[in-house]
Amino acid sequence: MAEELQKWVLMVTAQTPTNIAVIKYWGKRDETLILPVNDSISVTLDPEHLCTTTTVSVSPAFDQDRMWLNGKEISLSGGRFQSCLREIRSRATDVHDKEKGIKITKKDWEKLNVHIASYNNFPTAAGLASSAAGFACLVFALAKLMNAKEDHSQLSAIARRGSGSACRSLYGGFVKWIMGKDEKGTDSLAVQLADEKHWDELVIVIAVVSSQQKETSSTTGMRDTVETSLLLQHRAKEVVPKRILKMEEAIKNRDFASFAQLACTDSNQFHAVCLDTCPPIFYMNDTSHRIISLVEKWNRAAGTPQVAYTFDAGPNAVLIARNRETAALLVQKLLFCFPPKSDADLNSFVLGDKSILKDAGVESLEAIENLPTPPEIKDPSQRHRGDVSYFICTRPGRGPVVLSDESQFLLNPETGLPK
Amino acid sequence: MAEELQKWVLMVTAQTPTNIAVIKYWGKRDETLILPVNDSISVTLDPEHLCTTTTVSVSPAFDQDRMWLNGKEISLSGGRFQSCLREIRSRATDVHDKEKGIKITKKDWEKLNVHIASYNNFPTAAGLASSAAGFACLVFALAKLMNAKEDHSQLSAIARRGSGSACRSLYGGFVKWIMGKDEKGTDSLAVQLADEKHWDELVIVIAVVSSQQKETSSTTGMRDTVETSLLLQHRAKEVVPKRILKMEEAIKNRDFASFAQLACTDSNQFHAVCLDTCPPIFYMNDTSHRIISLVEKWNRAAGTPQVAYTFDAGPNAVLIARNRETAALLVQKLLFCFPPKSDADLNSFVLGDKSILKDAGVESLEAIENLPTPPEIKDPSQRHRGDVSYFICTRPGRGPVVLSDESQFLLNPETGLPK
Repeated sequence: MAEELQKWVLMVTAQTPTNIAVIKYWGKRDETLILPVNDSISVTLDPEHLCTTTTVSVSPAFDQDRMWLNGKEISLSGGRFQSCLREIRSRATDVHDKEKGIKITKKDWEKLNVHIASYNNFPTAAGLASSAAGFACLVFALAKLMNAKEDHSQLSAIARRGSGSACRSLYGGFVKWIMGKDEKGTDSLAVQLADEKHWDELVIVIAVVSSQQKETSSTTGMRDTVETSLLLQHRAKEVVPKRILKMEEAIKNRDFASFAQLACTDSNQFHAVCLDTCPPIFYMNDTSHRIISLVEKWNRAAGTPQVAYTFDAGPNAVLIARNRETAALLVQKLLFCFPPKSDADLNSFVLGDKSILKDAGVESLEAIENLPTPPEIKDPSQRHRGDVSYFICTRPGRGPVVLSDESQFLLNPETGLPK
Repeated sequence: MAEELQKWVLMVTAQTPTNIAVIKYWGKRDETLILPVNDSISVTLDPEHLCTTTTVSVSPAFDQDRMWLNGKEISLSGGRFQSCLREIRSRATDVHDKEKGIKITKKDWEKLNVHIASYNNFPTAAGLASSAAGFACLVFALAKLMNAKEDHSQLSAIARRGSGSACRSLYGGFVKWIMGKDEKGTDSLAVQLADEKHWDELVIVIAVVSSQQKETSSTTGMRDTVETSLLLQHRAKEVVPKRILKMEEAIKNRDFASFAQLACTDSNQFHAVCLDTCPPIFYMNDTSHRIISLVEKWNRAAGTPQVAYTFDAGPNAVLIARNRETAALLVQKLLFCFPPKSDADLNSFVLGDKSILKDAGVESLEAIENLPTPPEIKDPSQRHRGDVSYFICTRPGRGPVVLSDESQFLLNPETGLPK
């Protein structure tokens, strides 16, 4: 790198989805390498509604690695960031940008610093797996910048070092994280079971539940579960392997009844082992319980599952409806039970694919107030106003992509600093 | 029985305690005989504060078996009542009441009808194991009336047919229900581990939690768990047997640290298998969770358990304090977090052994309002007013007794009808 090159800045911007596990990951067999005690399966959510955008840039002018998350500089000193940066750097290859006249050799990457800016198009604190999308995007974007030749599956094993569930965000559609056997974790990676077009009738409604309770972080929680639960090992060794096979079959055959049954029971069992932890971990609250009861009653009355529910390490419900008609019904029932506070704006109460409101015939706050009592609700006076902060309507979506539109870049192409 | 005897009425009144399991019973291996999938251990609660009183009477004038519960006639046609009545009748022996000049032979009992009146000194619907005390009292009183020679342990196997946990109410103190091996259930019965004087420092505070949710009955709930939970068998076969041995040791040695650790983790595991049931069963609510968090934080800060918690098939917390000083502190903390509604009367908000209020320095509603923020509570504005309906302060107590004071009889000695 000659002196005259000091001024160049090279950058890549990528967009990566978040994902929701339908067979849960809970418990590590290796804390540092982030190796899980069982396989897991997830659905990738449409990045149009929930995603992370990350711009990574390199310049000889950068004197250290720096990162900004949602506009605020954060430390990269954590072991997880360092693992991802180190692993990607070691896989960097020669880069030749003819247009800009930049040449970077494999060896140069060891000395070059990067700037990273990352942005979530959804509230970070809402417990919507922002770290999954975030680390997947970081690794994917850096791999593109550094011309790493690894495929998505190999990159997933690196993203895994940032956040376990991040590995599943390297693909769209339906994804399996294979736990692997290798002590070093080389075979603990994600594979795609089916892309997002395979089963595109599914509609996903997320209820972001209001909560005052401070939650146990999933890292701390799963460590405590591994150390103290007497049920976790039985789950990991005896229960999950069979469920994984069944879930793969259900996805392959678009068998919603089996899919829903497996997703719901596995979500419940994950929360059961949390409760079996010392001290016990409660991620679901009374609102979560009410949503489950609503769905369970509906599914039973219908004779076959209409909606699946799954809950991660927080009270938010992720509801997967078998098709758009069912989703419209689901939205009606949810809005009846959990109407917005009186000062709310419908536009900020239902996010994502708002067209569902038209299908549900609920296009105003008055329409919500006048909804008929769902048959699952015995006491129509029991409307839990404000207990859900907002809903997001989405669907299964695609995997990571590189964005070429400069207006979407998060760093200034000249300075490599946040715009 | 000659014609002139038609007018006599013979009666017995007994009082039987309720009990709280510290190693839980959840799941039957035989629904009809009520045979459990694991042993369980309980603490008998002082009947002064929580008990059932039952008067049973016999007269040749009674034309059918009848029963009144809390003053209201109820049907005896259920299988559980019939099992208990049949089993006790078959063990009846000759009775000779010289004073009244009554002679009943073993054979007469087959034709004689009984009247039964039962009364709980606590709200039946509060989820405080009223059926346990009720069936224990029914069986105990009938055995006395009919001069059955069986000891308490043998009677416990009959009470078990009424309600599984009833068998543990045949003894005071600390009681084990041995699951047994016999297919007919003859060896599934209760034994006393230690009487109530063995460990009389313990103080028990029950928080009766306000709930709008209709609960799953324990009969239905445990059937669903046996049929659908993939964790229950592991719990019953691998986890509980070891815990039973440890809990027996803890009780024997009055080792509160072990006792509390076992009671809390077993309660949590019971609720975990409920959550692992399809559809999932939620007995605890946000208030229950808050009480657990409070106790867990306190215990951790103290370095050794001060209070154990355990929850049955409902949201009520049963809190066992290591001694009276700790109990007074516990009451302070609970009253801070869960003050009564503003229109409440302290006298009906803390029931049972009210002297604890003096020890806690909380003898007025004003004193509750002025309580200092417990160190476990981060946000002192978070006082959950009205979330606990009332508290009952009690202690380990004695087993069944016969009451001789006629004023306590629930049936008129002349007519055999409710007073």
